[in-house]
Amino acid sequence: MPGSSDNKEFFLGIDGGGSKCKAIIVDADNKILGTGISGPANPLHGYEQAVNSITESAKLAIKDAGLGGLELKDVIAGVGLAGVNLPVLFEQMSNWQHPFKQMFLATDLLIACLGAHNGQDGAVMITGTGSCGFSYVDGHPYTLGGHGFPHGDKGSGAWFGFQAANHVLMSLDGLKADSVINNQLLNKLNVKDGLEMVETIAGKPAAFYAQMANLVFDAAEDGDEIAKEIVHEGASYISGIARQLDKQNPPRISLIGGLTPRIMPWLDKDIKDKLEEPVCPPEVGSVIYARQQLALL
Amino acid sequence: MPGSSDNKEFFLGIDGGGSKCKAIIVDADNKILGTGISGPANPLHGYEQAVNSITESAKLAIKDAGLGGLELKDVIAGVGLAGVNLPVLFEQMSNWQHPFKQMFLATDLLIACLGAHNGQDGAVMITGTGSCGFSYVDGHPYTLGGHGFPHGDKGSGAWFGFQAANHVLMSLDGLKADSVINNQLLNKLNVKDGLEMVETIAGKPAAFYAQMANLVFDAAEDGDEIAKEIVHEGASYISGIARQLDKQNPPRISLIGGLTPRIMPWLDKDIKDKLEEPVCPPEVGSVIYARQQLALL
Repeated sequence: MPGSSDNKEFFLGIDGGGSKCKAIIVDADNKILGTGISGPANPLHGYEQAVNSITESAKLAIKDAGLGGLELKDVIAGVGLAGVNLPVLFEQMSNWQHPFKQMFLATDLLIACLGAHNGQDGAVMITGTGSCGFSYVDGHPYTLGGHGFPHGDKGSGAWFGFQAANHVLMSLDGLKADSVINNQLLNKLNVKDGLEMVETIAGKPAAFYAQMANLVFDAAEDGDEIAKEIVHEGASYISGIARQLDKQNPPRISLIGGLTPRIMPWLDKDIKDKLEEPVCPPEVGSVIYARQQLALL
Repeated sequence: MPGSSDNKEFFLGIDGGGSKCKAIIVDADNKILGTGISGPANPLHGYEQAVNSITESAKLAIKDAGLGGLELKDVIAGVGLAGVNLPVLFEQMSNWQHPFKQMFLATDLLIACLGAHNGQDGAVMITGTGSCGFSYVDGHPYTLGGHGFPHGDKGSGAWFGFQAANHVLMSLDGLKADSVINNQLLNKLNVKDGLEMVETIAGKPAAFYAQMANLVFDAAEDGDEIAKEIVHEGASYISGIARQLDKQNPPRISLIGGLTPRIMPWLDKDIKDKLEEPVCPPEVGSVIYARQQLALL
């Protein structure tokens, strides 16, 4: 955590993504007093839902902290959101008649990076439902990947699940080798053959496929050749992202996101040796961002 | 064409797919007298639209033939449709209060196969917007692939375009080698970078990606290594489908669909040597099917 601030106010830190919005409220020393979680907050999937989720999570955090008398108009909010890398959405969210004393808006990538490196320069690879690389060095933000599913986001949970589904369909057709993931995937989807499987998976979004990622890692760890191939290909992409980010000379590099413990052992050794533990989670990065911006005013 | 029939009636042959419906009207000797083309006719994407497209294409074919006095209730129709491989859709279409004297319903795969082999046993690989393999031997239909986009349909136009887009996004990120398809794809999509490209391609259907397939084949023919890799992988899947179908001992195997001239040169030599020219198009296969079924009654 950064040292004490002279600012005696409370700060909200918001981390809003495609599936949920997390809020924390911290005191002047960045001590977390309460947390709140609400629904999706990516404005790309709906502006109204995003602003409602942000407001709701903030109220829940204040309630959780037992700060009954505190109102949203009394607090300064750092808000990190997925989607606002698109200029049109950044502008729309900036124009929101927000309920806070002040709001500082940033991308989910920037607040994740600031959190991981405690407000200092650094780089992160994020792999959860999606995947992405980001560095922030000398005031210069740099993004890699994160193109979305299914056309991008290699090495993400959705990508691993999708590769598994691809493989199983071809394997059931006799066009690829058998694998333990064939039956495991059919069981997981509660279907009996390829035809039923296709009916179940057709048109499904990233979050659906991401649920199958652990199954692939389990099989790979048990030595299944097909699963190992898939995991190697995805991990190799994440290693490539790290190598590319490293060219920006970030003082620290971290791997974050829900898939971190699964994919970490499969990264190239030179990359594994470089990685450092993230210091704070993204929502704390939002608070750090708000404090930094406030200091600049 | 099969020999003359004793039946003096006119026959309609319908080939209905996801983007259009083609109808022909033939005389007793299977001579094509007129053709008609209307909109989509895959009942999976809408029952009403499918039956309207079938009726409209049939009327257009009769009009094109100059058979002014002929009505739909006077003709026997062979109707091959995408989507009716799903039992629920086959039943729904079978229960249609159709306007024809008689209707014989089959999958688009069966009529394509019957057409290609002039009503005899055989196998087909179909690669256009989607891809699929099908054989019909001793009354036994056998389907391979055709699982749909983006989770299946490897070696299809959509798959080639999708692979190209995947590659270009990674290449623009510096994570894969450069290729002539990078600029060609950006130009084709009329975008200037990866960010604009993602906005353009996100959520697009198979038909959108299929428009980029020719660009990949052009680049591969010009010796671009990346394009050659993509084309080899797709063609190798189609060769695999052929090899798998061959285990059913079909007397003939043909490659059909819009991508045929592009992919043919890239198939494995043993497969190329096996392929025979399709005798008739799918809509003629529908007529053949209707005549065969009528003979069984």
